[in-house]
Amino acid sequence: MLRFLKKDPLSPAQIIVLFYVVAVILSICLLSLPITTNPGVDWSFLDIVFTAVSAISVTGLTVVSTVDTFSTPGTFILLFILQFGGIGIMTLGTFFWLLIGKKIGLKERTLIRTDQNQSHLSGLVYLMKQILTIILLIEFVGAIILGTYFLHYFPTWQEAYLQGLFAAVSATTNAGFDITGSSLIPFAQDYFVQMINIILLTLGAIGFPVLIEVKDFIKEKSKYRGHFSLYTKLTTITFFSLMAFGTIVILIFEANYFFADKSWHESFFYAFFQSSTTRNGGLATMDVSEFSIPTLLTLCFLMFIGASPSSVGGGIRTTTFAVIILLIWSYSKGRKHIKVFKREIHEDDIRRSVVVSFLAIVLWFTAVVILTRSETFSLMEIMFEVSSAFGTTGLSMGITPELSSIGKIVIISLMFIGRIGILSFVFIFHRRLEDVNYHYPTERLIVG
Amino acid sequence: MLRFLKKDPLSPAQIIVLFYVVAVILSICLLSLPITTNPGVDWSFLDIVFTAVSAISVTGLTVVSTVDTFSTPGTFILLFILQFGGIGIMTLGTFFWLLIGKKIGLKERTLIRTDQNQSHLSGLVYLMKQILTIILLIEFVGAIILGTYFLHYFPTWQEAYLQGLFAAVSATTNAGFDITGSSLIPFAQDYFVQMINIILLTLGAIGFPVLIEVKDFIKEKSKYRGHFSLYTKLTTITFFSLMAFGTIVILIFEANYFFADKSWHESFFYAFFQSSTTRNGGLATMDVSEFSIPTLLTLCFLMFIGASPSSVGGGIRTTTFAVIILLIWSYSKGRKHIKVFKREIHEDDIRRSVVVSFLAIVLWFTAVVILTRSETFSLMEIMFEVSSAFGTTGLSMGITPELSSIGKIVIISLMFIGRIGILSFVFIFHRRLEDVNYHYPTERLIVG
Ligand SMILES: [K+]
Ligand SMILES: [K+]
Repeated sequence: MLRFLKKDPLSPAQIIVLFYVVAVILSICLLSLPITTNPGVDWSFLDIVFTAVSAISVTGLTVVSTVDTFSTPGTFILLFILQFGGIGIMTLGTFFWLLIGKKIGLKERTLIRTDQNQSHLSGLVYLMKQILTIILLIEFVGAIILGTYFLHYFPTWQEAYLQGLFAAVSATTNAGFDITGSSLIPFAQDYFVQMINIILLTLGAIGFPVLIEVKDFIKEKSKYRGHFSLYTKLTTITFFSLMAFGTIVILIFEANYFFADKSWHESFFYAFFQSSTTRNGGLATMDVSEFSIPTLLTLCFLMFIGASPSSVGGGIRTTTFAVIILLIWSYSKGRKHIKVFKREIHEDDIRRSVVVSFLAIVLWFTAVVILTRSETFSLMEIMFEVSSAFGTTGLSMGITPELSSIGKIVIISLMFIGRIGILSFVFIFHRRLEDVNYHYPTERLIVG
Repeated sequence: MLRFLKKDPLSPAQIIVLFYVVAVILSICLLSLPITTNPGVDWSFLDIVFTAVSAISVTGLTVVSTVDTFSTPGTFILLFILQFGGIGIMTLGTFFWLLIGKKIGLKERTLIRTDQNQSHLSGLVYLMKQILTIILLIEFVGAIILGTYFLHYFPTWQEAYLQGLFAAVSATTNAGFDITGSSLIPFAQDYFVQMINIILLTLGAIGFPVLIEVKDFIKEKSKYRGHFSLYTKLTTITFFSLMAFGTIVILIFEANYFFADKSWHESFFYAFFQSSTTRNGGLATMDVSEFSIPTLLTLCFLMFIGASPSSVGGGIRTTTFAVIILLIWSYSKGRKHIKVFKREIHEDDIRRSVVVSFLAIVLWFTAVVILTRSETFSLMEIMFEVSSAFGTTGLSMGITPELSSIGKIVIISLMFIGRIGILSFVFIFHRRLEDVNYHYPTERLIVG
């Protein structure tokens, strides 16, 4: 791998894929260790592969109960895989995006410190250190808060802090795994735990460049004002707009259904949490299959969009969605170029967004068609599972453990492709991304 | 309308919408006449509106049984509306596309004979005459063949030729209405009737410019060779590729299901006819709800794409689909421009295709979400109905007559938007399409 990076014989897309293949194989080895599982647990190789891909891609779909399957050392191994998967995703995502020349701003350019005299590797190491620091800091604070709070939930302090640590890591990496045995359903009435979780999963899913810019903003407030990059503005607005949209739609659609017998604050938190979790968290405070079909379709749509790029999340990404919306808007206004926040979006980013979206739709549709043949579940359950796997969200209407072998293989493939990015998948067969000639100055966006 | 066309105060999009609104109102009046319906028939105003929109948009979805509701004069009134709808669609589609400067080739430029000295109106009249001649000729030949053949199906020659005429008009205009009471199911074993129907609906759905070019090709064979326009090549290849794709997929998906007890030639014709009919015909030789879900999803996809532009059909159109496929292909090859048949596809056409596709997906999804709340049918039945209405195909799993009022209004809106074109709908609010500056020479396509 070092040799590859130095001599650069592989394209960025190929390195990403190679990274994930190696990571998945290592995870399979770790999960196959006897100490990982509780005594008496006997899971199939396919289930181990499924769990490995789900963990590395921080999706959170599970074919086995995490709490019943994993021993205490196994739980730490799983935590390590989630951590590695989450940070790997963020690092590689940011790194290759910077590497292929798509700077988001002057500040970010120094992030990987690559100039003619430095190898890509030192840039990668430097970047990973930064990301690791930020993520571990967030998780540490999260674990302390949750662990301390959990002292009145669990009998021993060890269990409280183990639960707190697992919850913080799972939320920050948007992994969606749980060791409660039933996601966050036990905390359905505990708005404090929910708010902490929403904050952690938002920090993980909003994109690393945003975190850096906000950090810089806080550090040097006076100088920074108004200098957020187009990327940060667009992705953050989209991120929170989708959260708000989801909350409102769920509230409306379920008013006379799931929320019929709930108080306003219960309804609000159910809607708010389930909307937020589709950004990529994958945790849930309820059994989502209790929602009615219009709501479930909306959740599919939200999961399909997913998180921001250069984050721990999947899906077509918030920027891609924003560019598509702006494209439609500009076109209907008869404009040839997309202008937003006094900037123009680059032609290549538009094209990339469009291709990513269409490929994602093709992939989604193909997977749904295959599963409607291989499985006996309802169309809604299948569409939900496919959206969740592609978006690496990890929500499920409960069919994951009962999937057929073909079904599991399809979901594994979706999580894998959803993770490496659909364009990386397309570009595997190219030696390197072809260079593009820029014809006019524009500010670049991350897409897909 | 004459004044509008001469003085040009309305945009093409506004004229198209105005035309359809007037046409629908006139159709409602005609259908409300006492002589239209059989004695004792009492249908609601919403059902009349539904039938009027379905007929003018030549969709063919029906909330009432055509054979039970319509008297013999009523049948002729319906035929007239279908004819008017089909020809109006083809004329307006071709006319405005030529008018906004999108010539398909040297030959076609003379079609509307508009130069600085002539008004648009004379071009429109000239074009409509040509289209009328071609369509009536096709229908006449079709009616003679089918009517004569029907002599051994029906007791009297009058009924045989009435059935033949209705079948020929319904097939050529891709209207999908039937006066057999059960579409083409009575002819499920009659491959001759099916082949004639497939030919007629293909001639209606393949696009008027293609018909003209083929006519010219036949007339002056030696001179014309190899000079088909990019539009004709692309649209025709896509059209027949989709037909073949659908046939193969249906054969594979239903091999162990609907076709389990059928002979190879029965299976082939069921697959071939049902695939062809999704191009826009809307007739069926079987109850499509007998297909399994993977097949039904594939039919949804095919109906969503629909027919070629400047034809009697709807959907996002074959060219739009072809451009999207070529865009993905070019992008994955790292190419900046789409090159096909030694031509480059214009940037504006690509953008238009993309916007049309996304808007269509948004519309489709929104309609499905609304219907899953307003109706009690399965998700599959609703998705099928919505795809059929948007594509103005007219196939149904049988839920149309049982739709709620909200459901009917949604389906009416879809048929209307599917017909006027999703971009016309967007452009209603503009005075006229803004001019575009061309930067490099390319050959133009019709999209959406
Ligand atoms: K997740
Ligand atoms: K039709």
